[in-house]
Amino acid sequence: MDYLIGVDIGGTKSAVSLADDHFNIVARHSFITGAQTDPDEVLDRFIQTIRSLLDDHRIALSKVTGIGVSCGGPLDPVEGVILSPPNLPLWTHVPVRRRLQEAFDRPVTVENDANATALAEWKLGAGRGTRNFIYLTWGTGIGGGLILDGKLYRGATGMAGEAGHQTLLPDGPLCGCGKRGCLEALAAGPAVARMCHERATPRQIQHWLELTPGETEPNAKGVIRAAQAGDETAAGILKEAGRYMGIGLANLIQIINPERIALGTLAIHAGDLLLAPVREAIAKYAWPQLSTACEVVPAELGDRAQDMAALVLVSVRDG
Amino acid sequence: MDYLIGVDIGGTKSAVSLADDHFNIVARHSFITGAQTDPDEVLDRFIQTIRSLLDDHRIALSKVTGIGVSCGGPLDPVEGVILSPPNLPLWTHVPVRRRLQEAFDRPVTVENDANATALAEWKLGAGRGTRNFIYLTWGTGIGGGLILDGKLYRGATGMAGEAGHQTLLPDGPLCGCGKRGCLEALAAGPAVARMCHERATPRQIQHWLELTPGETEPNAKGVIRAAQAGDETAAGILKEAGRYMGIGLANLIQIINPERIALGTLAIHAGDLLLAPVREAIAKYAWPQLSTACEVVPAELGDRAQDMAALVLVSVRDG
Repeated sequence: MDYLIGVDIGGTKSAVSLADDHFNIVARHSFITGAQTDPDEVLDRFIQTIRSLLDDHRIALSKVTGIGVSCGGPLDPVEGVILSPPNLPLWTHVPVRRRLQEAFDRPVTVENDANATALAEWKLGAGRGTRNFIYLTWGTGIGGGLILDGKLYRGATGMAGEAGHQTLLPDGPLCGCGKRGCLEALAAGPAVARMCHERATPRQIQHWLELTPGETEPNAKGVIRAAQAGDETAAGILKEAGRYMGIGLANLIQIINPERIALGTLAIHAGDLLLAPVREAIAKYAWPQLSTACEVVPAELGDRAQDMAALVLVSVRDG
Repeated sequence: MDYLIGVDIGGTKSAVSLADDHFNIVARHSFITGAQTDPDEVLDRFIQTIRSLLDDHRIALSKVTGIGVSCGGPLDPVEGVILSPPNLPLWTHVPVRRRLQEAFDRPVTVENDANATALAEWKLGAGRGTRNFIYLTWGTGIGGGLILDGKLYRGATGMAGEAGHQTLLPDGPLCGCGKRGCLEALAAGPAVARMCHERATPRQIQHWLELTPGETEPNAKGVIRAAQAGDETAAGILKEAGRYMGIGLANLIQIINPERIALGTLAIHAGDLLLAPVREAIAKYAWPQLSTACEVVPAELGDRAQDMAALVLVSVRDG
């Protein structure tokens, strides 16, 4: 039996996982990585954690096929260097691959988290069996990864797949990225929260907040719970967000002609409350000969997505 | 010296060209193919024409590497069957490859004209030396072909690249395709003509018509000539069309991260009158780290594009 090591670097939390070559998790260790933590310290911590996971399970380094590292972009997958992720302000030009290769002398693959998750969903989740597959995260932001002709497609400078920042309304609301009318500004979590304030009464907002204990501002999770409980205003907000997601997917379908698109977080939580308006908008804004060739489904890996994203990189080193 | 044969099937005119393997045209014959012409008759005509071109130049069939056929889609490139192009109403399920292979026993490659022209611009024109390249026609319609990771990308059902029918204004003007707010409906020839009627005085329109003898309705060519002569209204119309093209290209840049995009007909005629607003909109609607990695240039093959599109198919049979 051979083993894989996955390192998932996040803005608030990171994790190291050890799995067998069928992607069964053998052991996993996660720890807090605040935005202000020094990257050298974090890398040392990863190295120690990998050593102790292997020791604890008496696995020789020679049995480890490789190490996959998934991290927010921008990063350089060819050199294995993390460049300057917005959620990790101290991580500028951090040579992760070199550090881990020096420590373990095993192959190290570094990829941005959207691409890595797309690969994981394609190999192990909602994209299995396809050759042309798109995965989109759908939470606070909307980001994507493209599997084209049976291979991860990175683009000229490794930044392909930013489908959340296509423009759907040239004079639309300001996006977190600084542009106007991006899909993300019309359909992601903050857009749902904005619509709450525009459409719901203070009493409704109060009620929705009670559905998400601990939150002080209305958010997508509360709106989904309220809609599931029959609140028409909440359902209308999801319908609007789903419509814009559907228009964005219709554009992807016209341009890329994929056979399947999988949608993350919000689509998993909301199900048809979001997927029905998504599919309705696709039927209206994409050509039937293209839209009927493409399924739109929720992502499948759920809570396992981040670990699998890092681990799957070991097996797709060449593409 | 080996030879290539190209067959360009159009709605009004078709052409057979014979070239050496450096794409120098040796001989060419074109003829009218009205929309109502029987496809069997047209195929017989192609076969006779190919025979006489080879005879005239004393070229043995054994010296012919292959035959490339470029035609409006939809078509099935795998089987080499033309399915039902809107501009050729009698051509439904026409097995072009089988007919030409039976006649000549040489390899036959059939591809839709947007993909074939993208390949030609990539191999011989504005896309030379790139690995990730997009070509867009920009005339009466807007269609495209994608070269990704050094290969023509066809998509799940051979229909990828319909970038002219991405939605930029969900409630925008009706497109010829039946959808609303497509890039094509906002930036192609008919959109320019529509803006003439909205923005120009009858006197201006009269003057613009005088710039395009033989035309009875204002069109993009007249608007370009008027703008080149200093007409501000005409320049404003081009600016608006260019702005929408730029937003559409920004979306392609966000999603595909290409290194070069080449634009056809109108961009070639208008130059910076269209390309300046295109580039301005890209700077506004795409991220700098993506837009600065992508050049936007006019296509280079011009009048040779259609012949080269058919001929180049011979050399890229496998991708």
